Amino acid sequence: MDEFELIRRFFSAQPVQREDVLLGIGDDAALLHVPAAQELVVSTDTLVAGMHFPVNLSAEAVGHRALAVNLSDLAAMGAAPAWALLALTLPEVDEKWLEGFARGFFQLARRFNVALVGGNLARGALNITLSVHGFVPTGEALTRSGAHAGDHVFVTGCLGDAAAGLERLRAGVDAADADSGVRRFCFPEPRITAGLALRGIASAAIDVSDGFAADLGHILQASGVGARIAVASLPLSPALLRHVPREEAERLALSGGDDYELCFTVPPERMQRFESRKGMLDCPVTRLGEIIPEKTLRCMRTDATEWPLNTAGYKHF
Amino acid sequence: MDEFELIRRFFSAQPVQREDVLLGIGDDAALLHVPAAQELVVSTDTLVAGMHFPVNLSAEAVGHRALAVNLSDLAAMGAAPAWALLALTLPEVDEKWLEGFARGFFQLARRFNVALVGGNLARGALNITLSVHGFVPTGEALTRSGAHAGDHVFVTGCLGDAAAGLERLRAGVDAADADSGVRRFCFPEPRITAGLALRGIASAAIDVSDGFAADLGHILQASGVGARIAVASLPLSPALLRHVPREEAERLALSGGDDYELCFTVPPERMQRFESRKGMLDCPVTRLGEIIPEKTLRCMRTDATEWPLNTAGYKHF
Repeated sequence: MDEFELIRRFFSAQPVQREDVLLGIGDDAALLHVPAAQELVVSTDTLVAGMHFPVNLSAEAVGHRALAVNLSDLAAMGAAPAWALLALTLPEVDEKWLEGFARGFFQLARRFNVALVGGNLARGALNITLSVHGFVPTGEALTRSGAHAGDHVFVTGCLGDAAAGLERLRAGVDAADADSGVRRFCFPEPRITAGLALRGIASAAIDVSDGFAADLGHILQASGVGARIAVASLPLSPALLRHVPREEAERLALSGGDDYELCFTVPPERMQRFESRKGMLDCPVTRLGEIIPEKTLRCMRTDATEWPLNTAGYKHF
Repeated sequence: MDEFELIRRFFSAQPVQREDVLLGIGDDAALLHVPAAQELVVSTDTLVAGMHFPVNLSAEAVGHRALAVNLSDLAAMGAAPAWALLALTLPEVDEKWLEGFARGFFQLARRFNVALVGGNLARGALNITLSVHGFVPTGEALTRSGAHAGDHVFVTGCLGDAAAGLERLRAGVDAADADSGVRRFCFPEPRITAGLALRGIASAAIDVSDGFAADLGHILQASGVGARIAVASLPLSPALLRHVPREEAERLALSGGDDYELCFTVPPERMQRFESRKGMLDCPVTRLGEIIPEKTLRCMRTDATEWPLNTAGYKHF
C-alpha cells in the first residue's frame, strides 16, 4: 500500500468540515482563509516514541496526545483552533495502529472543530509532528511577556497527576485501568475554553508542559519579573494524594510536567472581571501567589522555608 | 545544553525579518498577519535520514533540502513564501551539525524571504519536518485539478539529474565534488519564481518530487484526464547524458524523482500570454505533449512504441 492510499484510507474521511478550508488534503498544499481582523496563531510540536511517551502507549492515546499537546499551545495564546497538519513517520504500515491513532486524533479534533488540512507519511522511527493553526482577534493574544509585579498567579485544574500517571505507566500499569493519573497522561485536555475566556483578562499565559515551576519561569523571564508561590496552595487531586505522600505530590506538581494546564497572571484591576468570567473557563482555577519585582521564583512552604527548586523542568536533551 | 539554549543559539538570530510576523520564536505560538485578499497556502513535508537522503549527506545540504522540498510545494501552488516552522528531531546535540544545518536552511530562507517563526527540538532518530506558509491572491492558486483535453504539458528545467546524483552519492561520491547531478540532489532549487509567473496561465501544476510520470499522473487523476508525452522531448542535461546512456537517462527523467521541477499544463488560448511571460519564469521550460480525454498516460517513443511505464513513482512505504 502506498502513501496516497494510506492517506485516503485513514485521514481523508475526516469528520470536521470548515468553510475556511478552500482546499484540503490531496493537492500540493492546503488553501485556507483567515478571517478579517484575526491574527493567525501557529505552533508545532513533536512526539517521539520512548521520549515523550512509553513505546507501549495505545495508538488512540498517541493520536489524542499528539493533537492535545499542540492545541495546548493555542490555548495558552487564547486562540480558537482551526486547522492541523500531521507529519507521521512510522516504522511500518500497521493498519490497526493507524486506525487507533486516527480515532484518538479525530475524536479530539471533532470536539474542538479542528480540520486536518494536510500531512505527510514517511517511513522511519515513530515520530509524530503536528503544526496547528488558530485565530485570535487582532491584539488580543495572550503571551508570556505581560506579567507585572502585583499580578496574581493562577493555574487551571490540578498539577502532578500526569507525571504520577507516567511513572505508573512506565512501571507497567495498563492504560485501560483508567486510573485518573494515567488517563491524565494519556489523554491530556487542552484548556482551549479557558484560554478563550482569559482574553482581555490574563496579562500573561503559558501551558504547563515541562513542569509548573519551569513554565512559570518562562513567563517570569519573558516578563522580566519574579513570583512568590505558596506550595500549600498547589492544586493536588485526591487521587494523586492517595498514590503518593504529600511532599512527593508537591514535587510532581512543581516539576513533573505533562499537565497541560494553563498558568496565567491576572492584574489586580481585572480581578473583578475575572471573577465574573470564571464560570466560562470550564475548569477549576487556583490562585497560587503573586508576581514580584525581584527576578526570582520563590516557592514558600507554610513554615516559611523555601522549596529547593530545580527550575530547569523537563530537559529535552 | 537544553532545548531553549539551542534554539537561541542557532535559530533565533535568523536573517529574515518580516512585518507580518507579529510574534516569532519564543512564545507558545507565533502570531502572524495574513494580508487581505490573500489565501493562506500551507504544506508540510518530512525528511528522514536514510530514507530521503543518505545518512552521510552534509548538514548544510540537509538544511537546504528540508526547506527546498517544502518551498517546492508552495511553488506548485503559485504561492509567495512567507513563514516556516521547523520540527527537528536529533539523536544528539551536535553543534557542528546544527551550525551547518542552520547555514543551509537560512541561506535558502534569505533568498525567498522566509521567516522561521517557530519550531521544536526533540531527541530521537534524525527527522526533519517543516511546515511552510505562503500567500496567493484569492482565486489564483494553481491546483492539480484544472487540466483539460487539449492543454499543453510543460516542465521546468531538466529531469533525471537528481536521481542520477543520488545514485552516485550512494556509491560514495563526495558531495563537495560539485558534480551537477549530485548538487541537484543536495541543493534542489524550488521553482518559486516560475510558480508566481504561472498564476493566471497554468490550468494545473504539481512539483516533481516522486518522478515525472507519477506526479503528472496526480494531475491526470485529479483532473479526470490523460496525457500523451513525447519521450524524445524530455529535457535531459548534457551532464546527465555524459553519465548514463540515453535510455537510462529517459528512465531517470520519467521515474527518478527528487527533481523538484514544476510540471504544469497550459490551455491553448493562454499560450500567447504564456509565451510573453516565459522570461519571468527564471528557468527553461519544455513542452512535452498534451492532455487527452482518455484517462491514461502514454509516453511515446519516436518509433511510435510506448514506454513501459511504471507510474507508481517513489514508494513512501
